[in-house]
Amino acid sequence: EEVAKLLELKAKLGDDSQKTKFVLKCPKGTRDYNPQQMAIREGVFNTIIKCFKRHGAETIDTPVFELKETLTGKYGEDSKLIYDLKDQGGELLSLRYDLTVPFARYLAMNKIQNVKRYHIAKVYRRDNPAMTRGRFREFYQCDFDIAGQYDAMIPDAECVKLVSEILNQLDLGEYIIKINHRKVLDGMFAACGVPDDKFRGACSAVDKLDKTFWDDVRAEMIQEKGIDPIAVDKIGKYVELKGRTELIDKLLEDEAMKAQKSAVEGLEDLRVLFKYLELYGITDKVVFDLSLARGLDYYTGVIYEAILQGFAHNPKAGADGDESVSVGSVAGGGRYDGLVGMFDSKGKKVPCVGVSIGVERVFAIMESRALASNTKTRTTETEVYVVSAQKNLVEERMKICKELWDADIKTEQSYKRNPKALDQFQYCETNSIPIAIIIGGSEIEMGVVTLRIVGSREERTVQREKMVEEIKSVLANLN
Amino acid sequence: EEVAKLLELKAKLGDDSQKTKFVLKCPKGTRDYNPQQMAIREGVFNTIIKCFKRHGAETIDTPVFELKETLTGKYGEDSKLIYDLKDQGGELLSLRYDLTVPFARYLAMNKIQNVKRYHIAKVYRRDNPAMTRGRFREFYQCDFDIAGQYDAMIPDAECVKLVSEILNQLDLGEYIIKINHRKVLDGMFAACGVPDDKFRGACSAVDKLDKTFWDDVRAEMIQEKGIDPIAVDKIGKYVELKGRTELIDKLLEDEAMKAQKSAVEGLEDLRVLFKYLELYGITDKVVFDLSLARGLDYYTGVIYEAILQGFAHNPKAGADGDESVSVGSVAGGGRYDGLVGMFDSKGKKVPCVGVSIGVERVFAIMESRALASNTKTRTTETEVYVVSAQKNLVEERMKICKELWDADIKTEQSYKRNPKALDQFQYCETNSIPIAIIIGGSEIEMGVVTLRIVGSREERTVQREKMVEEIKSVLANLN
Repeated sequence: EEVAKLLELKAKLGDDSQKTKFVLKCPKGTRDYNPQQMAIREGVFNTIIKCFKRHGAETIDTPVFELKETLTGKYGEDSKLIYDLKDQGGELLSLRYDLTVPFARYLAMNKIQNVKRYHIAKVYRRDNPAMTRGRFREFYQCDFDIAGQYDAMIPDAECVKLVSEILNQLDLGEYIIKINHRKVLDGMFAACGVPDDKFRGACSAVDKLDKTFWDDVRAEMIQEKGIDPIAVDKIGKYVELKGRTELIDKLLEDEAMKAQKSAVEGLEDLRVLFKYLELYGITDKVVFDLSLARGLDYYTGVIYEAILQGFAHNPKAGADGDESVSVGSVAGGGRYDGLVGMFDSKGKKVPCVGVSIGVERVFAIMESRALASNTKTRTTETEVYVVSAQKNLVEERMKICKELWDADIKTEQSYKRNPKALDQFQYCETNSIPIAIIIGGSEIEMGVVTLRIVGSREERTVQREKMVEEIKSVLANLN
Repeated sequence: EEVAKLLELKAKLGDDSQKTKFVLKCPKGTRDYNPQQMAIREGVFNTIIKCFKRHGAETIDTPVFELKETLTGKYGEDSKLIYDLKDQGGELLSLRYDLTVPFARYLAMNKIQNVKRYHIAKVYRRDNPAMTRGRFREFYQCDFDIAGQYDAMIPDAECVKLVSEILNQLDLGEYIIKINHRKVLDGMFAACGVPDDKFRGACSAVDKLDKTFWDDVRAEMIQEKGIDPIAVDKIGKYVELKGRTELIDKLLEDEAMKAQKSAVEGLEDLRVLFKYLELYGITDKVVFDLSLARGLDYYTGVIYEAILQGFAHNPKAGADGDESVSVGSVAGGGRYDGLVGMFDSKGKKVPCVGVSIGVERVFAIMESRALASNTKTRTTETEVYVVSAQKNLVEERMKICKELWDADIKTEQSYKRNPKALDQFQYCETNSIPIAIIIGGSEIEMGVVTLRIVGSREERTVQREKMVEEIKSVLANLN
């Protein structure tokens, strides 16, 4: 019997210790946004949305999860990073991995042939988080895509122009937009002697060149992808090439490349693209870079990626270097003409081209800037704080608040019956509220209020019935 | 051998038929938002956010999933509706069920003692969807909460005032805000002879009174919750009561009620609340209703729910009546003083009161209104469309687009090299674009463009270097 009692006691203690051991945290790779961070986030979104709208985009939204089969076979090697939901009876679901596949599903499902849309929403990847670099498991994507059967490079050029407008407006410093073409890459792999079925593997290895040394990429291609070392070394020569139209011309004369139909088609596209980008006045912001590959399987044409120069990754900094400097890539995208067809029962294609802005990296930069500059971001827009200078005036304060709210003036008051005067003024200062309306017994007797400009501490007496009018005129002057 | 070949053939056919059988849909209970729906959604959010900011609220955001244990034990009977993620190694996760529990977790984790925040985000419930009534498995919540140790009913009254402001601004017609108090309910159950441990069960049964007849609620209390029929019939008398301050006074004199400390405390709270609501000028919008219970376990004080009169549920319409009429409840909330303490290792409490706006129901009403009124909602903000009246002018169009984009004018053009003039003008009309800039060979020779006001078809010739200026002045006049 005593044993039973002890066991019962132990069980109780166990429960208690479990209670205090409760882990209070966000899931791995995710974070909360506090009001300061939200203010930064909203500023970034507004800037980007303004650019999207300047190019005539509409917006749509899709559910955070999709049928599991909708995502199957779209992401190549990265499919292992998809979050699945538990089978609780009913459909098998997965969290969206990007906004592009849901967009393609939306187009196919609604039989939409052309649209220009943006979509800003969170996506989910069970990746190794590097939160100081702005890499999370839950993160925002900001996508702009043009779907439709159009003439070559006209929508593509607009996407690149849009990226440059966004980066200019966000004021993130110098940047370069690397450009390449999947057909040029495929032609290059063929020209180097890589068999067709190893193109995507070679591509995903080359994609790592912005983060790692050629030697590592070379080893991956030979050992993991099983590509002939002679072919790999030929690739090594090509991926060093960077340039503009002169490089396009040079490659069109390269014996190995010009034998590849795919390479020639891609290079002709790029020639047109670079002409359009010149008309758009951004030749100095772009470079044709054969080392740009982009990881995703679904690209079929032009691809691009914008790199911030001030934050470019320097592989020579070593593997244990400061991770916080390598937030280089802030936008990327390309053409994917086959994806929508994968969702259509008859395989009907809708050509698409788009760009995704890496806003988490932008947030990270903006946040560290705000920290460094030591300026305070207001997180509320309160215009008036109603202060009682004496006890037992909560009901009078309420009457004033009602009047101000009903006049669309952003107003707060203390939630205490009898707050201290000092605390109330302190609240105004801390929260940068521009106006305090002060009432005491004498004000109420005389039918007036005291209006204080918090910044200058200047005070004036205002007739109660002129209060709203006076506040509006003071606010207009302060702005 | 032949069998093997047949099997192989069958496998191939199987693959093919699977491809065409692919189900193209959103997961059950979810939906896409098309551009028209997004325009409505943004309008609703902007109206609500304006009200939140008028009361000095900041905003935060939390991840879409939480550690499973964070949600455990917070939702009573509804816990079965939580979406769990698959265990793919690492932490066990669940999709958030509401924004209140994540808010409480956020406060406890960051040791925040007081804040006034709003949070607009999607939440997830594996409920039986009724999409025509605006009930989904993925849906938006719009929450406003005041956390902090304050004096009785001051923040609570502000929440009710805020609900009335939002419903006025959204212009949804007549509404009534039902008010009750968990302590009054508990006191009522005790007064009727319900044992303590059956309060929550009784509460969740009473909560169904807005959707179903008393007879069904009575049966549930007796059969499912195991409450004595005599007690249930006493409850039946109380839950018919509705009123304002006179009902509070009457109940304070009710022999059975006044014997219950909890009931008296709740009624005293309500007396103060109704006084404040009178000062806020909304007495005619509120009613003390003893049948209001609210389903969630965590409420500890005042509770409220706003019902649209034009859409109130009529149980007499029968079980197979038109579901679309019962979108009555559009906002609800209350006080929950214990929830944050459940996350603190020392059980330190942070009292909270808040309100959640049922925006999905608001969207549903707005959408059916837009449909009925037959007015077209613009889904883009494009100001200028650049039209070429002849062939081979795509590069000239691009130069003009660049100039207009760089001048922050919202501009589109056709993505075809040689679009038909008629198609281009048609695009302007369909998308309500106010201005067309037209170029042809003669315009280019003379260094001019033709500016057409799409609405009136009026045209004028403008010097190319005055184009931006002229467009801006036309736009200013049109607005």
